Amino acid sequence: MKSFASDNYAGVLPEIMEALGKANVDHARSYGADEATKKAVALFRDVFEADVDVYFVFNGTGANVLSISSATQSYNAVLCSDTSHIYNDESSAPETFTGCRFFPLPANDKGKLDVAIIHERLIRKGDVHYAQTAMLSITQATEYGTVYQPEEIKAIAELTKDNGLYLHMDGSRFFNAAASLKCGLKDISGNAGVDILSLGGTKAGMMFGEAVVVFNKELSKLIAYKHKQTMQLASKTRFIAAQFDAMLQNELWRTTASHANAMAELLCASISKNRKVKITKPVQANAVFAEIPRGWYEPLQKHSPFYVWKESTHEVRLMCAWDTKEEDIKQFADAVNALPK
Amino acid sequence: MKSFASDNYAGVLPEIMEALGKANVDHARSYGADEATKKAVALFRDVFEADVDVYFVFNGTGANVLSISSATQSYNAVLCSDTSHIYNDESSAPETFTGCRFFPLPANDKGKLDVAIIHERLIRKGDVHYAQTAMLSITQATEYGTVYQPEEIKAIAELTKDNGLYLHMDGSRFFNAAASLKCGLKDISGNAGVDILSLGGTKAGMMFGEAVVVFNKELSKLIAYKHKQTMQLASKTRFIAAQFDAMLQNELWRTTASHANAMAELLCASISKNRKVKITKPVQANAVFAEIPRGWYEPLQKHSPFYVWKESTHEVRLMCAWDTKEEDIKQFADAVNALPK
Amino acid sequence: MKSFASDNYAGVLPEIMEALGKANVDHARSYGADEATKKAVALFRDVFEADVDVYFVFNGTGANVLSISSATQSYNAVLCSDTSHIYNDESSAPETFTGCRFFPLPANDKGKLDVAIIHERLIRKGDVHYAQTAMLSITQATEYGTVYQPEEIKAIAELTKDNGLYLHMDGSRFFNAAASLKCGLKDISGNAGVDILSLGGTKAGMMFGEAVVVFNKELSKLIAYKHKQTMQLASKTRFIAAQFDAMLQNELWRTTASHANAMAELLCASISKNRKVKITKPVQANAVFAEIPRGWYEPLQKHSPFYVWKESTHEVRLMCAWDTKEEDIKQFADAVNALPK
Amino acid sequence: MKSFASDNYAGVLPEIMEALGKANVDHARSYGADEATKKAVALFRDVFEADVDVYFVFNGTGANVLSISSATQSYNAVLCSDTSHIYNDESSAPETFTGCRFFPLPANDKGKLDVAIIHERLIRKGDVHYAQTAMLSITQATEYGTVYQPEEIKAIAELTKDNGLYLHMDGSRFFNAAASLKCGLKDISGNAGVDILSLGGTKAGMMFGEAVVVFNKELSKLIAYKHKQTMQLASKTRFIAAQFDAMLQNELWRTTASHANAMAELLCASISKNRKVKITKPVQANAVFAEIPRGWYEPLQKHSPFYVWKESTHEVRLMCAWDTKEEDIKQFADAVNALPK
Repeated sequence: MKSFASDNYAGVLPEIMEALGKANVDHARSYGADEATKKAVALFRDVFEADVDVYFVFNGTGANVLSISSATQSYNAVLCSDTSHIYNDESSAPETFTGCRFFPLPANDKGKLDVAIIHERLIRKGDVHYAQTAMLSITQATEYGTVYQPEEIKAIAELTKDNGLYLHMDGSRFFNAAASLKCGLKDISGNAGVDILSLGGTKAGMMFGEAVVVFNKELSKLIAYKHKQTMQLASKTRFIAAQFDAMLQNELWRTTASHANAMAELLCASISKNRKVKITKPVQANAVFAEIPRGWYEPLQKHSPFYVWKESTHEVRLMCAWDTKEEDIKQFADAVNALPK
Repeated sequence: MKSFASDNYAGVLPEIMEALGKANVDHARSYGADEATKKAVALFRDVFEADVDVYFVFNGTGANVLSISSATQSYNAVLCSDTSHIYNDESSAPETFTGCRFFPLPANDKGKLDVAIIHERLIRKGDVHYAQTAMLSITQATEYGTVYQPEEIKAIAELTKDNGLYLHMDGSRFFNAAASLKCGLKDISGNAGVDILSLGGTKAGMMFGEAVVVFNKELSKLIAYKHKQTMQLASKTRFIAAQFDAMLQNELWRTTASHANAMAELLCASISKNRKVKITKPVQANAVFAEIPRGWYEPLQKHSPFYVWKESTHEVRLMCAWDTKEEDIKQFADAVNALPK
Repeated sequence: MKSFASDNYAGVLPEIMEALGKANVDHARSYGADEATKKAVALFRDVFEADVDVYFVFNGTGANVLSISSATQSYNAVLCSDTSHIYNDESSAPETFTGCRFFPLPANDKGKLDVAIIHERLIRKGDVHYAQTAMLSITQATEYGTVYQPEEIKAIAELTKDNGLYLHMDGSRFFNAAASLKCGLKDISGNAGVDILSLGGTKAGMMFGEAVVVFNKELSKLIAYKHKQTMQLASKTRFIAAQFDAMLQNELWRTTASHANAMAELLCASISKNRKVKITKPVQANAVFAEIPRGWYEPLQKHSPFYVWKESTHEVRLMCAWDTKEEDIKQFADAVNALPK
Repeated sequence: MKSFASDNYAGVLPEIMEALGKANVDHARSYGADEATKKAVALFRDVFEADVDVYFVFNGTGANVLSISSATQSYNAVLCSDTSHIYNDESSAPETFTGCRFFPLPANDKGKLDVAIIHERLIRKGDVHYAQTAMLSITQATEYGTVYQPEEIKAIAELTKDNGLYLHMDGSRFFNAAASLKCGLKDISGNAGVDILSLGGTKAGMMFGEAVVVFNKELSKLIAYKHKQTMQLASKTRFIAAQFDAMLQNELWRTTASHANAMAELLCASISKNRKVKITKPVQANAVFAEIPRGWYEPLQKHSPFYVWKESTHEVRLMCAWDTKEEDIKQFADAVNALPK
């Protein structure tokens, strides 16, 4: 089955498999005290050009919960987009683990948060009756496959700093964003004012593993304890480290994410001329959002699975991955265009 | 470095690496809806000869917390050994996630819990002022490298059933226990009255991943939600499933765990005659516990790292793994016996 | 100072003080095992004409958290109004204690929840990635001083039942609602389909204390344990019980709540003709919401404190209590009408 | 019924009832912003001769949980006596709310913690696998009716300071302790090195209410938020404040606690000569612990209820209160001595 359902349907990059094999020699100290982990962290510091702390974790929810728990007390609140993964797709893990309130902010029509909207919710500081806002979480690339420009992030970061909030970035598709913007990883994270980043590896072609990258040393104070406490500390950490090491070497991530992005662009181009297809969001990363006729779900999903994003408007999400081929696109577009218009 | 520090210093079994490679084809549905996961679960049902539910998780702490959270409400208490991993080595993850109180019971001189000790703590049922005991957690093989006999487990299970408690088994070295007892996996879990098992894969030679095996259908009611909520649901679940599939095929686990156990036995035999070495626990799985002179730490740890378990008595833990070689044992024993007596 | 800031600025009803004095004789068993508590609970059963369970608690947040924790597991979600006390004024106590996600629903222009709005959010049942909605919480009287009609509650209750949700009512001003509707307490709670009620005593003229009234026996299973665990079990429970006993005797609550409501009506009538005053919500209980000129805050608050509800529209809340006098209203209205028009 | 079951069976001191009546005039600001609260806090500062912060709460569990939550993060551990209220009688409220692990330490034969025992458990600092000990909680007077001498507290405080721990004192019978020692409140709290105190009012003769007294300004940083979040912030705080004000005025507490202590001493003297009665703990506050024949429970409890503390040794607890009369003691002693010897 080749699918547009999610980039996590894809397997593991050959370069990553090779790295895993190479890492599998000898004994290595556990829980991140090994040499492979040290080497990978050093590479992160090179790439981000900053003295970042890096914590390797198992999955995206773990990365987000660890990031938030390192910056909050249980009487705090976190602001996030009402379309965010953390608000919609991580059960109540964030609340159960951090104790915090999560306040949703309306995303704009590009799936992003506007400074004005954020500003409006910076209320009741010092009021003990109100869960005290301590953090803002934004997603890059967004759940709608759009990307924040560096200046947009900087403007948001400035607002959060001015108001004593930490800025978290959920970067489960961070590589796709950087590839889309043709910028460095640092340009849309630490250098733009992000305090802590959940850097996604799995959807980018790893077998498992994400990295929490800490730019703000304030957040490094207790995160090592939270790392263990959130059940995210792998005993054989070397096998996450080795994957990230391979991903960052020679910007493997850029090659593969650029390819996925290009496939989404091609897919968009291939179906958007069909007058029954309405592209709903700018295609900036590896996703295409489109409204299609309700009757198309069944015949098309038989061909290639995809998610129905919003039933009320027949909006579907078509996601490309590192292994999506031009041929897959062509076949799907042919199927679309063969449907009765 | 070859080490006796922990079995999680070892790498990944070649058979597991091969299985990972084979699993890496095509797209597969995520979050456990894939075919590899279904196949592995079916194999679990064959092996355990029961209609078990199986939840693949990332690590041992995750397995334990998921198991406990599926059986408890936040006003409950869990009984466990004062030497257990869950009580000593998982930070406060169990409390933070489940809200429960954990009451330690004294382990006997073999690192096991006696029925009488458990019975003594089944108190204050129905008293709202007291966290209500809902579960007992035992470890197989124990943290001291000893194993519960099937009848011992049955006796404990009878007690827990009679008192309305669930019985959890932390089986991070469960394969070593079954290999030691030369019995089937089922004989010391479901068939012996265990309700839910944390089955360890990582220390047995996997890259990552453990399985929560549910024998008691009462505990299956909400565990799928807890699986996600505890941050233990992998998007590319197939890569945990494939490892367990390989581990269970032709009892690969028995071959490798038996080897590790044999190495521990050999190590014990090789150093126990040294009159300054006092073996402190029966060697039944893959660990050797011994009291050695304080002055030996440094020269020996230079040779092969190991853990000092109890500083006050100079008790150290020497752990063998699937990849420990007779030669490693010989070299270490030679080093021991070369020390001034 | 006489104030329109909140009904919790008022003191204690003389009848309640008398009841407290009478309760203060001899020894009584603690933690609710006393005779006064039994007597009060029996009176609740008479008044609500149902076999309700009653748990006396300390304050409104405690009542709400206990109610919700008796109906939820930590992977659940609770729906509530975006204007509700539980969402805005109880810190993150609900999350920290229950672990649940709280989803806000937009209140209509009367501060109430419409069935259609609720219905729209009954989504993703059985989806492990989404915190599973288990409860709806509505407020009677609402935070805007409006009241749900019995039929409105019944319609909401029908929807929640049909969808497997429990219905919680935050009744911190429940007596005001019943007095406004000239109905019995049962008619807008148990008989209308409410599963569990936070019944407010403090704002109604008690010294402290609220009651959690359980109509649905499903929710009685573990609430006694939660009662203690939420830190809401008073050792000298008789002193809360005695207050509620006095409040329910001869419908003392109706006399006092009707008075507070009448005062709000009078206040509304007294200021609404001023052309700079815009009454924004129907005055149905003991609150008046009005938009007034920004410049009036200072001179008026000097006279009698009140809350600014919404700074952007200059909407203020004027709250009457059991001890508000016609003279207080007159003086305040005179002050309003003396301001430059 | 006159009872020796618990000092919380007693009612409210007449002086406290009078104070409640006096506090019940006019409107007062809610949530502790009122004048009565300010006045009471000022009196605390006078009495403790320190710039303490004071938070009035509803009950003892609330006081303890608030105290601990102000000093801990969820990855922390708290050391406490295995006989402590917080470990045995507060359900899992401490864990559920703070997320922390609670490690029990064995109390000595006087129900107190020895420095050596505490010292032994100050282990694994900085080890992320181990819940990091952040606080020690001791009880004054202890659950066994014994009291720590000021020097004992100072020695413990020195140990905790030296090891970076906060020292909490559960003082639900703190007044009894100070009365027993004939010292000032400050001498066994702030001046002895206690960082935060749960000061009990209810058992001392108040209707409800305890006070959290903060000596260490480090713990004042966020406690106001925790006060609300733990559901312990009363809207009509004046009625707790007024009770404490009365209790501290002219050392009312000393008069009443000394009386309760004297009654316990009398009770001890009255029954200890009976050769079947074995007094098991020094009688230093208002409790008498004694082993009595199993067959005495029924006839004696019919006369005056009491708690069986330890069934295995037939140890019972006889508790005196502010309202225990010499006559009550005499009648009970007569009943004891009338039993077959």
